[in-house]
Amino acid sequence: QFRENFLKLHPYDQAKFFMKIEFDDRLNIYYFLSPKEVADFFEVLDIEDQEYKDILAEMEPNYAADMLSFMYTDNAVDVLNKLDKRQAVSYLTIMNKESAQEIKNLLHYEESTAGSIMTTEFIAISANQTVRSAMHILKNEAPTAETIYYVYVVDDDHRLVGVISLRDLIISNDDAMIADMMSDRVVSTTVDENQESAAKQMRDYDLLALPVVDFQNHLLGIITVDDIIDVIDEEASDDYSKLAGVFDVDTVDKSPFTAARKRLPWLIILLFLGMFTASLIGRFEATLNEVSILAVFIPLIAGMAGNTGTQALAVAVRGIATGELEEESRWKLVLREAGTGLITGSICGIMVSIIVYLWKGELFLGFLVGVSILASLFVATLAGSLVPLLMHKLKIDPAVASGPFITTMNDITSILIYFGLATLFMGYLVH
Amino acid sequence: QFRENFLKLHPYDQAKFFMKIEFDDRLNIYYFLSPKEVADFFEVLDIEDQEYKDILAEMEPNYAADMLSFMYTDNAVDVLNKLDKRQAVSYLTIMNKESAQEIKNLLHYEESTAGSIMTTEFIAISANQTVRSAMHILKNEAPTAETIYYVYVVDDDHRLVGVISLRDLIISNDDAMIADMMSDRVVSTTVDENQESAAKQMRDYDLLALPVVDFQNHLLGIITVDDIIDVIDEEASDDYSKLAGVFDVDTVDKSPFTAARKRLPWLIILLFLGMFTASLIGRFEATLNEVSILAVFIPLIAGMAGNTGTQALAVAVRGIATGELEEESRWKLVLREAGTGLITGSICGIMVSIIVYLWKGELFLGFLVGVSILASLFVATLAGSLVPLLMHKLKIDPAVASGPFITTMNDITSILIYFGLATLFMGYLVH
Ligand SMILES: [Mg+2]
Ligand SMILES: [Mg+2]
Ligand SMILES: [Mg+2]
Ligand SMILES: [Mg+2]
Ligand SMILES: [Mg+2]
Ligand SMILES: [Mg+2]
Ligand SMILES: [Mg+2]
Ligand SMILES: [Mg+2]
Ligand SMILES: [Mg+2]
Ligand SMILES: [Mg+2]
Ligand SMILES: [Mg+2]
Ligand SMILES: [Mg+2]
Ligand SMILES: [Mg+2]
Repeated sequence: QFRENFLKLHPYDQAKFFMKIEFDDRLNIYYFLSPKEVADFFEVLDIEDQEYKDILAEMEPNYAADMLSFMYTDNAVDVLNKLDKRQAVSYLTIMNKESAQEIKNLLHYEESTAGSIMTTEFIAISANQTVRSAMHILKNEAPTAETIYYVYVVDDDHRLVGVISLRDLIISNDDAMIADMMSDRVVSTTVDENQESAAKQMRDYDLLALPVVDFQNHLLGIITVDDIIDVIDEEASDDYSKLAGVFDVDTVDKSPFTAARKRLPWLIILLFLGMFTASLIGRFEATLNEVSILAVFIPLIAGMAGNTGTQALAVAVRGIATGELEEESRWKLVLREAGTGLITGSICGIMVSIIVYLWKGELFLGFLVGVSILASLFVATLAGSLVPLLMHKLKIDPAVASGPFITTMNDITSILIYFGLATLFMGYLVH
Repeated sequence: QFRENFLKLHPYDQAKFFMKIEFDDRLNIYYFLSPKEVADFFEVLDIEDQEYKDILAEMEPNYAADMLSFMYTDNAVDVLNKLDKRQAVSYLTIMNKESAQEIKNLLHYEESTAGSIMTTEFIAISANQTVRSAMHILKNEAPTAETIYYVYVVDDDHRLVGVISLRDLIISNDDAMIADMMSDRVVSTTVDENQESAAKQMRDYDLLALPVVDFQNHLLGIITVDDIIDVIDEEASDDYSKLAGVFDVDTVDKSPFTAARKRLPWLIILLFLGMFTASLIGRFEATLNEVSILAVFIPLIAGMAGNTGTQALAVAVRGIATGELEEESRWKLVLREAGTGLITGSICGIMVSIIVYLWKGELFLGFLVGVSILASLFVATLAGSLVPLLMHKLKIDPAVASGPFITTMNDITSILIYFGLATLFMGYLVH
């Protein structure tokens, strides 16, 4: 029958199925499946906030509250955060007291902190017992714990003092003491730490779960590896979106209107920056009138500066984000980028000078374009690394210095350099 | 003593320590630590290929071969792939036969396939036994298996028929039969599949390990979640690098020369594309001579086209990479992007027309710039989505259509549109 076939599916496939069906079929699901069974796939749904509201409203309030209480706490919190405050509170009121309290404890952690992605369904034991008794506890808690593969050891004040893996428990003697076997150098994160650095720790130490503690080292929750994978995905696509100047590259919009709405804010800002660039060139109209051939090289110079700036920006943003770029080496990066800008600028500048000379037969014009390229590439590369470093220093996400933004900034400086030089040495250009 | 303190560290911290010390201290490590103990942190080293060669050459050949055999096969393969063929073969010759054979089996999988990141240290049992006997096998294999948290069930031909988690084994009755308890809908990947889609499966199904099979469903290996995290990181930074036009954003180069060497190839290609743009404008020199004010709006129009193109490109590239954009909906994307381009183009075009008219007091100039923006944004948005989709169709990595590349292509089209229109309607511009 339907129920049995459905329950054989993996929760992810159940969720995919659920997202495809219509209202009437969903009502059937609520009728045939228990709140616990719905909770299993409800956790992996990937739908819009509004859809969460609508779907929960379709269920009996008690059924919905029950289902939320059967979800792992972190996921229940995620769902409740998408609802209106009133709707969320109403479910918490009719939910069983214990689940409601656990959820409330997690609800107030700020977005993107370790606290906001941790769950409270972990196994904690005391050190002062044998492997046998630890295994006994573990078996009892297995049905509700999110992972049973790491068991955390706490003292009487619930302070984190050790960790032991199920693997070690399984292969060890039943009479061995936990205190002797546990590892007492526990890798952990504090509840206010940002999720990106928690992700780094899990990646580096190859953990399946990371314990989250408060400032007195009390164990509050754990972050599981599947949630960290989502964090890594999210952070990467966030940086990518910003480099491209789009709000969120990963939601595939259905209509051109929603897509346009997400991109227009960027474009309008850039439009005004572009008008400013235009007004700068306008100030050199006299020069342009004399030597209109100057216009020919505007996109080349501005484009090259924009591109080197984006390269330098990307290296700095990722270096900061992935932690590859350590605190001390950040100012070294600026020095190195200055060097890189000089090298790429000189090589491109010389090539351009030669090409322009061969093409137009004007030595000074070639020289002017070449020097402008050299200077623009140098400044653009420097700016591309300095801007994100400064932003990081000011505690602004360096990725906010998006690609289009740095490109347009570099349009402006390169044009100033180019027309500045041209106006200065006008005499050599007019024959 | 040193040895004991060192062994208390997590392998990741051991590796960090090892990377900092000098030759003499490394010799001490080889002296005091067993090949197995060195293998534990050697797997997580993050050093250049040349350094792998040098460090292995520091060890006694037999010591090095032993150490490689104690590593998980996937990691040993990774290390051997960094050596010269001759050096690799020499270690395989003196290694114990069994490890050497396992490594050789993995060495020939192509880079970025599931086969290239899988390991052979998994636990496989037959369905026809009790939980008790399965647990017995599991305990025996626990010291060498990379994960014991999933146990794979195979038939007599070693075909994958089921999977059972240690969690289920632990909470179940010792006399229950594996065949009755295992899940027979196993999520698996084939050995030739690319690593990115394996990563997607593990992320969607929240797995700790993914079995890898051949085309007859024979179980060949498993991919563990820590390696998938590295794949996700790598693929994300790969896409990011390409959008920025840098070869590999994630290696922090020490010298400006290596940094310049990585960026120059892009810049030189773009330089030639830029010269082509310049020569295009050169063809309109007559127009420019008449109406030199046209030059003022070149960076604005080219910049806006470049930016919208990058936005559309980023959405398409990530959509393909993350699989959010399914096969059927790809051509719908192009339609949607056409719509998006029209909307953003119209809005920006109208704004620009008004601003230019107010600024310069020339109605037709405003109209010309506005229409150019509209057309450029439309074409750029369309190109930004079409190019990656076509590349994907031609089985080229769509991310190769880098940001700078699409930006420069859009420079060219936008300038053609702008000057084409200007030349056509020259009469209205000259007074
Ligand atoms: Mg709960
Ligand atoms: Mg959350
Ligand atoms: Mg790792
Ligand atoms: Mg979770
Ligand atoms: Mg989860
Ligand atoms: Mg970030
Ligand atoms: Mg540009
Ligand atoms: Mg081995
Ligand atoms: Mg490999
Ligand atoms: Mg997942
Ligand atoms: Mg591995
Ligand atoms: Mg690994
Ligand atoms: Mg890719």
